[in-house]
Amino acid sequence: MDNIKTIAFDADDTLWGNEPDFQETEKKFCLLLEGYLPEGAVTKELFRTEMQNLSLYGYGAKSFILSMIETLVRVTNNAGDILLVNEVIRLGKELLQKPVELLDGVEETLSELNGCYRLVVATKGDLLDQERKLHNSGLGKYFHHIEIMSDKKKGNYVTLLKNINCKAENFLMVGNSLKSDVIPVLELGGYTVHVPFHSTWAYEEIDREIDSPKFLEAKNIAELLKILP
Amino acid sequence: MDNIKTIAFDADDTLWGNEPDFQETEKKFCLLLEGYLPEGAVTKELFRTEMQNLSLYGYGAKSFILSMIETLVRVTNNAGDILLVNEVIRLGKELLQKPVELLDGVEETLSELNGCYRLVVATKGDLLDQERKLHNSGLGKYFHHIEIMSDKKKGNYVTLLKNINCKAENFLMVGNSLKSDVIPVLELGGYTVHVPFHSTWAYEEIDREIDSPKFLEAKNIAELLKILP
Repeated sequence: MDNIKTIAFDADDTLWGNEPDFQETEKKFCLLLEGYLPEGAVTKELFRTEMQNLSLYGYGAKSFILSMIETLVRVTNNAGDILLVNEVIRLGKELLQKPVELLDGVEETLSELNGCYRLVVATKGDLLDQERKLHNSGLGKYFHHIEIMSDKKKGNYVTLLKNINCKAENFLMVGNSLKSDVIPVLELGGYTVHVPFHSTWAYEEIDREIDSPKFLEAKNIAELLKILP
Repeated sequence: MDNIKTIAFDADDTLWGNEPDFQETEKKFCLLLEGYLPEGAVTKELFRTEMQNLSLYGYGAKSFILSMIETLVRVTNNAGDILLVNEVIRLGKELLQKPVELLDGVEETLSELNGCYRLVVATKGDLLDQERKLHNSGLGKYFHHIEIMSDKKKGNYVTLLKNINCKAENFLMVGNSLKSDVIPVLELGGYTVHVPFHSTWAYEEIDREIDSPKFLEAKNIAELLKILP
């Protein structure tokens, strides 16, 4: 890892918690619909709607709200009370205004790495929502560049590297998703550190072992300080 | 305009039509609600909802769909048929899949300017939706950089200039909105060319004359070829 010059951090569930907020909102959504379907079945229907809408809506909270509304109409067999829609909009706005809670060791780690490396945020999701979280996190001062991506596939990382003028062999990506933060970066020849988070969105789950000299697992973000030269 | 090195183009209603698509969707939305309120009143209610949600949702089609749904619930006094919600979701998805229609002279102008200047897209709205439009427009090959911004205020342009490593005095912004494409760029010391479009979103309208040596009006985008050295 001697030639790393730029470190990019995923944001949601790497710098701050996010999936628990979505799961809490989803739980409340299931409760709204408990007269129609049991919780597990609503969750399944919602995930199906999200996957159907992904290519059109993309990631993030607004897509999630729209998919909840669509699921609500379907689950109630087009017969639900329209006030339920209002309640989903309220849940969505509540989700968009959740306080940002930094994960353990994030601020100390960034503060330590800053100066030695060029630090970047590379996150996917709603443009405005991600900017709001970054602003509320107070972490903005550590980052040289913020890239909010519509997806985290290989091509998106090619654009990111071009935007920050960095070669893959000088690039380290740190994040909680093997699918989005690790695999595409390894494919480009970059370094990766996977910092698992206790909750993972079903979409990000993969059933695959990763074996690469440019891949490391870390228990928490602070371990970066031991890993990096 | 001798020291211009980079030209940034707004996208919606500068490179391709957009506002007419939104207006068509809004018209269909008003028709859905004609049993409750006359068209003009629905339009007013929708705009009110959009303005209330702007700081939370930001710009773009998904925010527009969410605001239509919220307006629908309110206008029907919480008593509308939930199938109306389905219809709004359908209208929203239709909007997100409209074909991209380039405005007159866009391709020829970009092709001519490319090589002499570094060309950039600087647009606000939904991340994925703007990328989709750019992809479908076939114009991607002319641009060195694509910046999708959460807003177009002075601070957002400061970030853009930093991202593309360009000084304001070497920067020209071309767009149809005085409020978003011209005023903040002039304040930073950049050049601006305003190319009006026949339809303007009420939010972008300003009641102010602009007088600056770094500001020009053009009838259409092709006039850039006469304006620029």
